Amino acid sequence: MKLKYAVIGTGAIGGFYGGKLANAGEEVHFLFRSDYEQVKNHGLQVNSVNGDFTINPINAYCSTLEMPVCDVVLVGLKSTANHLLPEMLKPIIHEQSIIVLIQNGLGLEEILSKQIPNNSIAGAMAFICSQKNSPGVISHIDYGSINLGLHKGDNDLLKNICSDLVNAGIKARIVPDLNEARWHKLVWNVPFNGMSVVMDVSTDEMLRNHSMCRLLQDIMDEVVMAAKYCGVNIAPDFSEKMINMTLEMTPYAPSMKLDYDHKRPMEIAAIYSAPIAAAEAVGYKMKKTRMLEQQLHFIADRNNR
Amino acid sequence: MKLKYAVIGTGAIGGFYGGKLANAGEEVHFLFRSDYEQVKNHGLQVNSVNGDFTINPINAYCSTLEMPVCDVVLVGLKSTANHLLPEMLKPIIHEQSIIVLIQNGLGLEEILSKQIPNNSIAGAMAFICSQKNSPGVISHIDYGSINLGLHKGDNDLLKNICSDLVNAGIKARIVPDLNEARWHKLVWNVPFNGMSVVMDVSTDEMLRNHSMCRLLQDIMDEVVMAAKYCGVNIAPDFSEKMINMTLEMTPYAPSMKLDYDHKRPMEIAAIYSAPIAAAEAVGYKMKKTRMLEQQLHFIADRNNR
Repeated sequence: MKLKYAVIGTGAIGGFYGGKLANAGEEVHFLFRSDYEQVKNHGLQVNSVNGDFTINPINAYCSTLEMPVCDVVLVGLKSTANHLLPEMLKPIIHEQSIIVLIQNGLGLEEILSKQIPNNSIAGAMAFICSQKNSPGVISHIDYGSINLGLHKGDNDLLKNICSDLVNAGIKARIVPDLNEARWHKLVWNVPFNGMSVVMDVSTDEMLRNHSMCRLLQDIMDEVVMAAKYCGVNIAPDFSEKMINMTLEMTPYAPSMKLDYDHKRPMEIAAIYSAPIAAAEAVGYKMKKTRMLEQQLHFIADRNNR
Repeated sequence: MKLKYAVIGTGAIGGFYGGKLANAGEEVHFLFRSDYEQVKNHGLQVNSVNGDFTINPINAYCSTLEMPVCDVVLVGLKSTANHLLPEMLKPIIHEQSIIVLIQNGLGLEEILSKQIPNNSIAGAMAFICSQKNSPGVISHIDYGSINLGLHKGDNDLLKNICSDLVNAGIKARIVPDLNEARWHKLVWNVPFNGMSVVMDVSTDEMLRNHSMCRLLQDIMDEVVMAAKYCGVNIAPDFSEKMINMTLEMTPYAPSMKLDYDHKRPMEIAAIYSAPIAAAEAVGYKMKKTRMLEQQLHFIADRNNR
């Protein structure tokens, strides 16, 4: 069965994965906001380290009310906009549709499954350096793999999505435990995203400094410990591997740093508040993570003034 | 017996207290560095909320080698320069001289008493908003009290200094336990000094923000707990009192923020590393204080590049 895809939030993430699927011949319908006129006239341009391509003409829309009902909804929105999801999803899902949250953080699928209790829901973790530099133009700088994990519902459907992604040239795979995968991703996201905002620097500048490198590792250890309290065992050498991976990365601003620089809302709730609350509920206080969260709230409030 | 005073480090602190003593008729010898020519020609000017005055002519020196031997050495240097003290003190102390460190942080008297084992040593905590705005000109903005505590040696001598200060119009008093007094001052210094540097803001801007206010209080609680492990009991409402005092203060940049802004060394070792080490030695980890210390080291390294 050929799947019909919707991409909600066609930015650096949604635009890349949706664009790859469309470029491979899948039927993909894209929701845009401010970029609509640009892509209607010139298509969606993806400048990728693996080869540039343009989706033109493109199935572009300004509102989900105009979009067809789809089998798969790939959500590339920032999690700070998730309160809008139930209303946006209504016109484009049928009973068997699956919603895939390609987002950072913890607990987002739980929230959505309370709002939309009858559909399949999955999460996805993108390991990618990409950004939207101008309207309708996405730059894929490095990496690009994606891990999919079922939250509830139809696992065969998720497998079909995974093979569509693989056929489109994406390193995609299904992970057996979404919660475990989310915690693994937090080990990197919690220290690097927030600290790059608080210190106003890139990841490589932080790692060149001995004290900061030590602090980032301390916070990673705290996330690993929190995961353990939440029943997720992370290998003891995982933090070190993440540091080494980051050292080898092309110097890159984490997504929260880009949000901060562009005065967009930061995903503090999903990346910080949710894991802190999850760990605290089972008796572990993430003290340094909490401090980082508070510093970020201060900065966010200052940014919005 | 009339005491002969030396002031080492005639800045916002040494210049104010030494200036008050000289203005009251005490014999005070001041060590200057870059301000020497200015004060030789125009005197030391103190613009104080309690009344302006100028010490002119002034006993000014460029080196302790030129200074007379004194009974009391008031040290107003930043603690980051304390490694220079033994050499500087040699020419100006006799066997009965007392050295009074008017400085922030923990453990400074212990270090000095290893270097200068035969003299009396005291510590002093200044509760003052003052700054040096231009060469030879000190602005006293608010407060001004000073607490003196003996580390070792001649307590009667310290009492004489205290009454000289009182006679000079200063709210001075002797505290029975220097270590206890130092920990009390750390309750304010640890959160406010470092955080104002990391967030690059004034104390009042931090306190206007709910998350930041909460974080500062968390760190205060951590200092109170560390003090307890070190045998110093701080009243449970002390943190709250400090917050309220700070809210009532004239908006003011803590000393470390001023050091940071002027690209001078920050007193990270005395205000952060020393209490962290003291608490850790008796089994308590100051996790948030440690995180703040690491962030400060990062900033200091970046500042010095």
